[in-house]
Amino acid sequence: MVSEKDVQQETAEKVKAEAVEETEETAENAAQQEKSTEAEAVNWQQQAEEAEDKYLRLRAEFDNYRRRIQKENETLQKYRAQNVVTGILPALDNFERALNIETTNDESASLLKGMQMVHSSLLEALKAEGVEIIESTGQQFDPNLHQAVMQVSEEGYESNTVIEELQKGYKLKDRVIRPSMVKVNE
Amino acid sequence: MVSEKDVQQETAEKVKAEAVEETEETAENAAQQEKSTEAEAVNWQQQAEEAEDKYLRLRAEFDNYRRRIQKENETLQKYRAQNVVTGILPALDNFERALNIETTNDESASLLKGMQMVHSSLLEALKAEGVEIIESTGQQFDPNLHQAVMQVSEEGYESNTVIEELQKGYKLKDRVIRPSMVKVNE
Repeated sequence: MVSEKDVQQETAEKVKAEAVEETEETAENAAQQEKSTEAEAVNWQQQAEEAEDKYLRLRAEFDNYRRRIQKENETLQKYRAQNVVTGILPALDNFERALNIETTNDESASLLKGMQMVHSSLLEALKAEGVEIIESTGQQFDPNLHQAVMQVSEEGYESNTVIEELQKGYKLKDRVIRPSMVKVNE
Repeated sequence: MVSEKDVQQETAEKVKAEAVEETEETAENAAQQEKSTEAEAVNWQQQAEEAEDKYLRLRAEFDNYRRRIQKENETLQKYRAQNVVTGILPALDNFERALNIETTNDESASLLKGMQMVHSSLLEALKAEGVEIIESTGQQFDPNLHQAVMQVSEEGYESNTVIEELQKGYKLKDRVIRPSMVKVNE
Protein backbone atom coordinates (compact mmCIF):
# COMPACT_ATOMS: atom_id res chain seq x y z
CA MET A 1 0.00 0.00 0.00
CA VAL A 2 1.19 3.42 -0.85
CA SER A 3 1.30 5.89 2.00
CA GLU A 4 0.58 9.59 1.55
CA LYS A 5 4.13 10.35 2.53
CA ASP A 6 5.40 8.14 -0.26
CA VAL A 7 3.26 9.99 -2.75
CA GLN A 8 4.53 13.26 -1.41
CA GLN A 9 8.10 12.04 -1.71
CA GLU A 10 7.50 10.74 -5.22
CA THR A 11 6.02 14.00 -6.39
CA ALA A 12 8.95 15.95 -5.00
CA GLU A 13 11.42 13.66 -6.71
CA LYS A 14 9.59 13.98 -10.01
CA VAL A 15 9.47 17.75 -9.87
CA LYS A 16 13.13 17.85 -9.00
CA ALA A 17 14.06 15.55 -11.82
CA GLU A 18 12.17 17.65 -14.34
CA ALA A 19 13.74 20.84 -13.14
CA VAL A 20 17.20 19.34 -13.15
CA GLU A 21 16.70 17.88 -16.61
CA GLU A 22 15.72 21.24 -17.95
CA THR A 23 18.65 23.03 -16.39
CA GLU A 24 21.02 20.26 -17.35
CA GLU A 25 20.00 20.70 -20.93
CA THR A 26 21.09 24.30 -20.78
CA ALA A 27 24.35 23.22 -19.19
CA GLU A 28 24.85 20.61 -21.86
CA ASN A 29 24.26 23.17 -24.58
CA ALA A 30 26.79 25.40 -22.92
CA ALA A 31 29.27 22.54 -22.78
CA GLN A 32 28.61 21.74 -26.42
CA GLN A 33 29.18 25.39 -27.30
CA GLU A 34 32.30 25.37 -25.18
CA LYS A 35 33.62 22.36 -27.03
CA SER A 36 33.24 23.93 -30.50
CA THR A 37 34.73 27.24 -29.30
CA GLU A 38 37.63 25.28 -27.89
CA ALA A 39 38.11 23.54 -31.24
CA GLU A 40 38.03 26.94 -32.90
CA ALA A 41 40.65 28.27 -30.52
CA VAL A 42 42.89 25.27 -31.20
CA ASN A 43 42.40 25.78 -34.92
CA TRP A 44 43.33 29.46 -34.75
CA GLN A 45 46.29 28.67 -32.56
CA GLN A 46 47.49 26.17 -35.14
CA GLN A 47 47.09 28.74 -37.90
CA ALA A 48 48.90 31.37 -35.85
CA GLU A 49 51.79 29.01 -35.20
CA GLU A 50 51.97 27.95 -38.84
CA ALA A 51 51.91 31.52 -40.09
CA GLU A 52 54.61 32.52 -37.59
CA ASP A 53 56.71 29.55 -38.67
CA LYS A 54 56.22 30.42 -42.35
CA TYR A 55 57.26 34.00 -41.60
CA LEU A 56 60.41 32.93 -39.76
CA ARG A 57 61.44 30.55 -42.54
CA LEU A 58 60.91 33.26 -45.16
CA ARG A 59 62.95 35.71 -43.13
CA ALA A 60 65.81 33.22 -42.89
CA GLU A 61 65.59 32.66 -46.64
CA PHE A 62 65.59 36.41 -47.26
CA ASP A 63 68.65 36.87 -45.04
CA ASN A 64 70.51 34.08 -46.80
CA TYR A 65 69.60 35.51 -50.18
CA ARG A 66 70.79 38.95 -49.18
CA ARG A 67 74.09 37.59 -47.89
CA ARG A 68 74.65 35.46 -50.99
CA ILE A 69 73.80 38.32 -53.37
CA GLN A 70 76.07 40.69 -51.50
CA LYS A 71 78.93 38.23 -51.79
CA GLU A 72 78.21 37.65 -55.46
CA ASN A 73 78.12 41.38 -56.09
CA GLU A 74 81.43 41.88 -54.32
CA THR A 75 82.97 39.22 -56.56
CA LEU A 76 81.36 40.73 -59.67
CA GLN A 77 82.69 44.15 -58.69
CA LYS A 78 86.11 42.81 -57.84
CA TYR A 79 86.64 41.08 -61.15
CA ARG A 80 84.49 43.32 -63.33
CA ALA A 81 87.51 44.20 -65.52
CA GLN A 82 88.23 40.56 -66.28
CA ASN A 83 86.42 40.27 -69.62
CA VAL A 84 87.74 43.44 -71.14
CA VAL A 85 91.26 42.76 -69.85
CA THR A 86 91.22 39.20 -71.20
CA GLY A 87 89.97 40.65 -74.47
CA ILE A 88 92.83 43.10 -74.88
CA LEU A 89 95.64 40.68 -73.92
CA PRO A 90 96.39 39.69 -77.55
CA ALA A 91 96.65 43.38 -78.46
CA LEU A 92 99.03 43.86 -75.52
CA ASP A 93 101.13 40.91 -76.70
CA ASN A 94 101.35 42.45 -80.18
CA PHE A 95 102.19 45.80 -78.65
CA GLU A 96 105.09 44.28 -76.73
CA ARG A 97 106.36 42.41 -79.75
CA ALA A 98 106.24 45.60 -81.83
CA LEU A 99 108.25 47.42 -79.16
CA ASN A 100 111.02 44.83 -79.33
CA ILE A 101 112.45 45.96 -82.67
CA GLU A 102 115.84 47.56 -83.13
CA THR A 103 115.81 51.06 -84.52
CA THR A 104 118.61 52.41 -86.69
CA ASN A 105 117.61 56.06 -87.10
CA ASP A 106 116.40 58.96 -84.95
CA GLU A 107 112.91 59.11 -86.39
CA SER A 108 112.25 55.45 -85.62
CA ALA A 109 113.86 55.76 -82.20
CA SER A 110 111.65 58.74 -81.37
CA LEU A 111 108.54 56.97 -82.63
CA LEU A 112 109.46 53.88 -80.61
CA LYS A 113 110.00 55.95 -77.50
CA GLY A 114 106.57 57.51 -77.89
CA MET A 115 105.03 54.07 -78.24
CA GLN A 116 106.85 52.81 -75.16
CA MET A 117 105.27 55.66 -73.23
CA VAL A 118 101.84 54.76 -74.60
CA HIS A 119 102.41 51.15 -73.57
CA SER A 120 103.46 52.17 -70.07
CA SER A 121 100.46 54.43 -69.60
CA LEU A 122 98.20 51.62 -70.79
CA LEU A 123 99.68 49.22 -68.24
CA GLU A 124 99.41 51.90 -65.53
CA ALA A 125 95.72 52.37 -66.28
CA LEU A 126 95.19 48.61 -66.13
CA LYS A 127 97.11 48.42 -62.89
CA ALA A 128 94.68 50.91 -61.37
CA GLU A 129 91.95 48.32 -62.02
CA GLY A 130 94.04 45.59 -60.38
CA VAL A 131 95.81 44.16 -63.42
CA GLU A 132 99.37 43.07 -62.72
CA ILE A 133 102.09 41.43 -64.77
CA ILE A 134 103.16 38.12 -63.27
CA GLU A 135 106.83 38.05 -62.45
CA SER A 136 108.58 35.06 -63.90
CA THR A 137 112.20 35.30 -65.08
CA GLY A 138 114.51 34.39 -62.21
CA GLN A 139 111.61 33.27 -60.02
CA GLN A 140 110.99 29.84 -58.59
CA PHE A 141 108.65 28.03 -60.97
CA ASP A 142 105.06 28.17 -59.66
CA PRO A 143 102.45 26.10 -61.52
CA ASN A 144 99.75 28.51 -60.30
CA LEU A 145 101.42 31.43 -62.06
CA HIS A 146 103.64 29.91 -64.74
CA GLN A 147 103.03 27.55 -67.58
CA ALA A 148 106.18 25.60 -68.53
CA VAL A 149 106.35 25.25 -72.29
CA MET A 150 110.02 24.28 -72.36
CA GLN A 151 112.24 22.46 -69.94
CA VAL A 152 115.99 22.78 -70.24
CA SER A 153 119.00 21.74 -68.25
CA GLU A 154 121.33 24.67 -67.89
CA GLU A 155 124.20 25.06 -65.54
CA GLY A 156 124.48 28.19 -63.45
CA TYR A 157 120.75 28.25 -62.74
CA GLU A 158 119.04 26.74 -59.75
CA SER A 159 116.74 23.80 -60.27
CA ASN A 160 113.06 24.58 -60.98
CA THR A 161 113.81 28.21 -61.81
CA VAL A 162 112.25 30.21 -64.65
CA ILE A 163 115.07 30.98 -67.08
CA GLU A 164 113.11 32.84 -69.72
CA GLU A 165 109.66 34.28 -70.22
CA LEU A 166 108.15 33.52 -73.63
CA GLN A 167 104.83 35.34 -73.09
CA LYS A 168 103.77 37.66 -70.29
CA GLY A 169 101.20 36.43 -67.82
CA TYR A 170 98.61 38.63 -66.11
CA LYS A 171 96.77 38.61 -62.83
CA LEU A 172 93.60 40.51 -61.96
CA LYS A 173 93.88 41.07 -58.22
CA ASP A 174 94.25 37.56 -56.76
CA ARG A 175 93.02 35.82 -59.88
CA VAL A 176 95.38 34.60 -62.62
CA ILE A 177 93.90 35.68 -65.96
CA ARG A 178 96.66 34.08 -67.96
CA PRO A 179 99.80 32.36 -66.63
CA SER A 180 103.21 33.36 -67.99
CA MET A 181 104.55 30.96 -70.61
CA VAL A 182 108.05 30.13 -69.47
CA LYS A 183 111.21 28.11 -69.99
CA VAL A 184 112.18 26.24 -66.81
CA ASN A 185 115.44 24.75 -65.62
CA GLU A 186 115.15 21.08 -64.63
CA MET B 1 -3.54 27.48 8.95
CA VAL B 2 -1.27 25.49 6.80
CA SER B 3 -2.82 22.50 5.01
CA GLU B 4 -0.94 19.32 4.42
CA LYS B 5 -1.17 19.93 0.69
CA ASP B 6 0.47 23.31 1.07
CA VAL B 7 3.32 21.74 2.97
CA GLN B 8 3.67 19.15 0.28
CA GLN B 9 3.69 21.87 -2.40
CA GLU B 10 6.21 23.91 -0.48
CA THR B 11 8.57 20.99 -0.03
CA ALA B 12 8.42 20.21 -3.72
CA GLU B 13 9.18 23.82 -4.65
CA LYS B 14 12.07 23.93 -2.27
CA VAL B 15 13.60 20.72 -3.55
CA LYS B 16 13.17 21.95 -7.12
CA ALA B 17 14.75 25.28 -6.39
CA GLU B 18 17.72 23.65 -4.74
CA ALA B 19 18.23 21.26 -7.62
CA VAL B 20 17.90 24.02 -10.18
CA GLU B 21 20.27 26.23 -8.31
CA GLU B 22 22.86 23.50 -8.24
CA THR B 23 22.52 22.72 -11.92
CA GLU B 24 22.44 26.39 -12.83
CA GLU B 25 25.70 26.81 -11.05
CA THR B 26 27.22 24.19 -13.33
CA ALA B 27 25.76 25.94 -16.35
CA GLU B 28 27.12 29.25 -15.18
CA ASN B 29 30.55 27.76 -14.75
CA ALA B 30 30.30 26.35 -18.23
CA ALA B 31 29.30 29.77 -19.58
CA GLN B 32 32.20 31.37 -17.74
CA GLN B 33 34.53 28.79 -19.18
CA GLU B 34 33.01 29.37 -22.59
CA LYS B 35 33.65 33.08 -22.33
CA SER B 36 37.36 32.68 -21.56
CA THR B 37 37.76 30.07 -24.31
CA GLU B 38 36.09 32.46 -26.70
CA ALA B 39 38.50 35.21 -25.68
CA GLU B 40 41.34 32.80 -26.25
CA ALA B 41 40.01 31.92 -29.70
CA VAL B 42 39.74 35.59 -30.61
CA ASN B 43 43.25 36.16 -29.34
CA TRP B 44 44.67 33.31 -31.43
CA GLN B 45 42.72 34.46 -34.45
CA GLN B 46 44.23 37.90 -34.07
CA GLN B 47 47.70 36.43 -33.79
CA ALA B 48 47.08 34.21 -36.82
CA GLU B 49 45.93 37.17 -38.87
CA GLU B 50 48.84 39.31 -37.75
CA ALA B 51 51.38 36.62 -38.53
CA GLU B 52 49.83 36.02 -41.95
CA ASP B 53 49.91 39.74 -42.64
CA LYS B 54 53.54 39.99 -41.52
CA TYR B 55 54.39 37.05 -43.79
CA LEU B 56 52.69 38.60 -46.81
CA ARG B 57 54.41 41.93 -46.27
CA LEU B 58 57.81 40.24 -45.99
CA ARG B 59 57.13 38.26 -49.15
CA ALA B 60 56.30 41.45 -51.04
CA GLU B 61 59.48 43.05 -49.69
CA PHE B 62 61.52 40.00 -50.72
CA ASP B 63 60.02 40.07 -54.23
CA ASN B 64 60.79 43.76 -54.59
CA TYR B 65 64.32 43.26 -53.35
CA ARG B 66 64.89 40.42 -55.79
CA ARG B 67 63.59 42.47 -58.70
CA ARG B 68 65.67 45.49 -57.74
CA ILE B 69 68.85 43.43 -57.25
CA GLN B 70 68.33 41.67 -60.55
CA LYS B 71 68.00 44.99 -62.33
CA GLU B 72 71.05 46.38 -60.52
CA ASN B 73 73.07 43.30 -61.45
CA GLU B 74 72.07 43.59 -65.08
CA THR B 75 73.27 47.19 -65.05
CA LEU B 76 76.50 46.23 -63.27
CA GLN B 77 77.13 43.50 -65.81
CA LYS B 78 76.24 45.71 -68.73
CA TYR B 79 78.63 48.50 -67.78
CA ARG B 80 81.25 46.39 -65.97
CA ALA B 81 83.94 47.54 -68.43
CA GLN B 82 83.28 51.22 -67.72
CA ASN B 83 85.97 51.84 -65.10
CA VAL B 84 88.78 50.11 -66.92
CA VAL B 85 87.77 51.69 -70.25
CA THR B 86 87.56 55.15 -68.69
CA GLY B 87 90.96 54.47 -67.18
CA ILE B 88 92.65 53.65 -70.46
CA LEU B 89 91.16 56.52 -72.50
CA PRO B 90 94.15 58.83 -71.88
CA ALA B 91 96.49 56.07 -73.10
CA LEU B 92 94.27 55.65 -76.17
CA ASP B 93 94.44 59.41 -76.81
CA ASN B 94 98.24 59.31 -76.59
CA PHE B 95 98.28 56.28 -78.85
CA GLU B 96 96.27 58.12 -81.50
CA ARG B 97 98.43 61.21 -81.26
CA ALA B 98 101.58 59.10 -81.63
CA LEU B 99 100.12 57.48 -84.74
CA ASN B 100 99.56 60.85 -86.38
CA ILE B 101 103.21 61.55 -87.14
CA GLU B 102 104.68 61.70 -90.64
CA THR B 103 107.35 59.12 -91.41
CA THR B 104 110.18 59.80 -93.84
CA ASN B 105 111.89 56.38 -94.00
CA ASP B 106 110.95 52.74 -94.42
CA GLU B 107 111.90 51.65 -90.90
CA SER B 108 109.66 54.28 -89.31
CA ALA B 109 106.87 53.56 -91.76
CA SER B 110 107.03 49.86 -90.94
CA LEU B 111 107.12 50.54 -87.22
CA LEU B 112 104.16 52.90 -87.58
CA LYS B 113 102.21 50.33 -89.55
CA GLY B 114 102.76 47.73 -86.85
CA MET B 115 101.55 50.19 -84.23
CA GLN B 116 98.48 51.00 -86.29
CA MET B 117 97.64 47.30 -86.27
CA VAL B 118 98.13 47.13 -82.51
CA HIS B 119 95.83 50.14 -82.13
CA SER B 120 93.18 48.55 -84.33
CA SER B 121 93.30 45.25 -82.47
CA LEU B 122 92.99 47.13 -79.18
CA LEU B 123 89.89 48.97 -80.42
CA GLU B 124 88.46 45.70 -81.75
CA ALA B 125 88.88 44.06 -78.36
CA LEU B 126 87.17 47.02 -76.68
CA LYS B 127 84.38 46.91 -79.25
CA ALA B 128 83.71 43.31 -78.24
CA GLU B 129 82.93 44.65 -74.73
CA GLY B 130 80.61 47.29 -76.18
CA VAL B 131 83.02 50.21 -76.53
CA GLU B 132 82.37 52.35 -79.59
CA ILE B 133 83.91 55.49 -80.99
CA ILE B 134 81.35 58.28 -81.27
CA GLU B 135 81.03 59.55 -84.81
CA SER B 136 81.36 63.28 -85.05
CA THR B 137 82.97 64.92 -88.10
CA GLY B 138 80.27 65.68 -90.65
CA GLN B 139 77.47 64.77 -88.23
CA GLN B 140 74.74 67.03 -86.94
CA PHE B 141 75.89 68.41 -83.57
CA ASP B 142 74.32 66.41 -80.73
CA PRO B 143 74.88 67.74 -77.19
CA ASN B 144 74.41 64.21 -75.84
CA LEU B 145 77.38 62.94 -77.84
CA HIS B 146 79.47 66.00 -78.65
CA GLN B 147 81.04 68.70 -76.58
CA ALA B 148 81.50 71.91 -78.55
CA VAL B 149 84.83 73.49 -77.62
CA MET B 150 84.94 75.82 -80.63
CA GLN B 151 82.26 77.47 -82.66
CA VAL B 152 83.13 78.81 -86.10
CA SER B 153 81.27 80.28 -89.01
CA GLU B 154 82.42 78.56 -92.17
CA GLU B 155 80.79 78.62 -95.56
CA GLY B 156 80.18 75.37 -97.36
CA TYR B 157 79.05 73.61 -94.17
CA GLU B 158 75.52 73.27 -92.91
CA SER B 159 74.55 75.03 -89.73
CA ASN B 160 75.06 73.12 -86.46
CA THR B 161 77.37 70.59 -88.11
CA VAL B 162 80.55 69.16 -86.60
CA ILE B 163 83.41 70.41 -88.76
CA GLU B 164 86.32 68.87 -86.90
CA GLU B 165 86.94 66.42 -84.09
CA LEU B 166 89.56 67.56 -81.57
CA GLN B 167 89.38 64.52 -79.31
CA LYS B 168 87.62 61.20 -79.84
CA GLY B 169 84.57 60.42 -77.76
CA TYR B 170 83.60 56.95 -76.57
CA LYS B 171 80.37 55.15 -75.77
CA LEU B 172 79.97 51.98 -73.72
CA LYS B 173 76.83 50.41 -75.14
CA ASP B 174 74.15 53.11 -74.74
CA ARG B 175 76.14 55.13 -72.23
CA VAL B 176 78.42 57.99 -73.24
CA ILE B 177 81.71 57.54 -71.39
CA ARG B 178 83.22 60.68 -72.84
CA PRO B 179 81.71 62.95 -75.47
CA SER B 180 83.75 63.92 -78.52
CA MET B 181 85.35 67.35 -78.28
CA VAL B 182 84.39 69.10 -81.48
CA LYS B 183 84.45 72.27 -83.54
CA VAL B 184 80.93 73.22 -84.66
CA ASN B 185 79.65 75.45 -87.44
CA GLU B 186 77.25 78.13 -86.24
